[in-house]
Amino acid sequence: MRQFAAERDWQVFHDPKSVLLALVGEVGELAELFQWLPADSAADLARSEPLRTRAGEELSDVLLYLILLADVLDIDLRVAAHAKLTAAARKYPAT
Amino acid sequence: MRQFAAERDWQVFHDPKSVLLALVGEVGELAELFQWLPADSAADLARSEPLRTRAGEELSDVLLYLILLADVLDIDLRVAAHAKLTAAARKYPAT
Amino acid sequence: MRQFAAERDWQVFHDPKSVLLALVGEVGELAELFQWLPADSAADLARSEPLRTRAGEELSDVLLYLILLADVLDIDLRVAAHAKLTAAARKYPAT
Amino acid sequence: MRQFAAERDWQVFHDPKSVLLALVGEVGELAELFQWLPADSAADLARSEPLRTRAGEELSDVLLYLILLADVLDIDLRVAAHAKLTAAARKYPAT
Repeated sequence: MRQFAAERDWQVFHDPKSVLLALVGEVGELAELFQWLPADSAADLARSEPLRTRAGEELSDVLLYLILLADVLDIDLRVAAHAKLTAAARKYPAT
Repeated sequence: MRQFAAERDWQVFHDPKSVLLALVGEVGELAELFQWLPADSAADLARSEPLRTRAGEELSDVLLYLILLADVLDIDLRVAAHAKLTAAARKYPAT
Repeated sequence: MRQFAAERDWQVFHDPKSVLLALVGEVGELAELFQWLPADSAADLARSEPLRTRAGEELSDVLLYLILLADVLDIDLRVAAHAKLTAAARKYPAT
Repeated sequence: MRQFAAERDWQVFHDPKSVLLALVGEVGELAELFQWLPADSAADLARSEPLRTRAGEELSDVLLYLILLADVLDIDLRVAAHAKLTAAARKYPAT
């Protein structure tokens, strides 16, 4: 993502609040895919085309902006996420 | 909104989580309008077309789904918002 | 909202992107109220306390930031929403 | 995430719309961290504590729900994101 942005001179736009709003935009597109699906058949419907490909694209857009935001903030998302999952495991012990 | 939905037999889709996701979708479209604008000129840019009309449309979409969600939940949004603003005024006294 | 902000010298913070992120924050709190409720009983659960009051508060927070954003953008939300609903009625004729 | 959920019998809650709303909730918490920061100093402020740790936690929460959603939908997020980035590189050639 860093190289992709640099090759297009897009870094100038990538302050945290702007990237965060872009992330919100992609989460909105993901929501639009699922909003009117019945809750109990949404997972099955998403296993068939064309929803499957569309969902993969929107999930990816969210991920890519999330990674970009972590990069802009100089945060190692892998390390942070492992720490968060470990903390969650302590907070909510397995049954 | 209630009449609009009823005339189209859309109430069947209007469970709270679905309407909430539709609201999220519209907030995402609103975010997309502003995401790459410079923070300090966004308000001025939004006073000119075509952004002005687009912003009005997206703000409206958010409002309409918010009103629909209040209706689905049988909540009087006017009363609730007045109460919230009064509570906020007590919590944060004027300087 | 305008008077409320002015009395606290908060207008300085109210550029469109900041208010929009505040709106996103409130939509997030609304989502947290409903996320794990079963889809087909969410409306009924929201008719009982304590969820009823909480939902009213979060819906209000979203509304208040939406109104503030419209004010910052100098958009008459009432007029815009009526226009949007009229346009939607033309786009999707009643069955 | 899959093992984490299974050990707590939480899979029953993990239909796509519910996980998506949980993701929205975490995006909202992320937005709350940044909403009132000046746009041009947000990145610097996020390099200092306590914001740095808080931002890492909220980014992680978004990532973890995104991964969970991909798992619920049986989508390989790594493959999908690589495909999306490749498609974006074709759509927006480097300058």
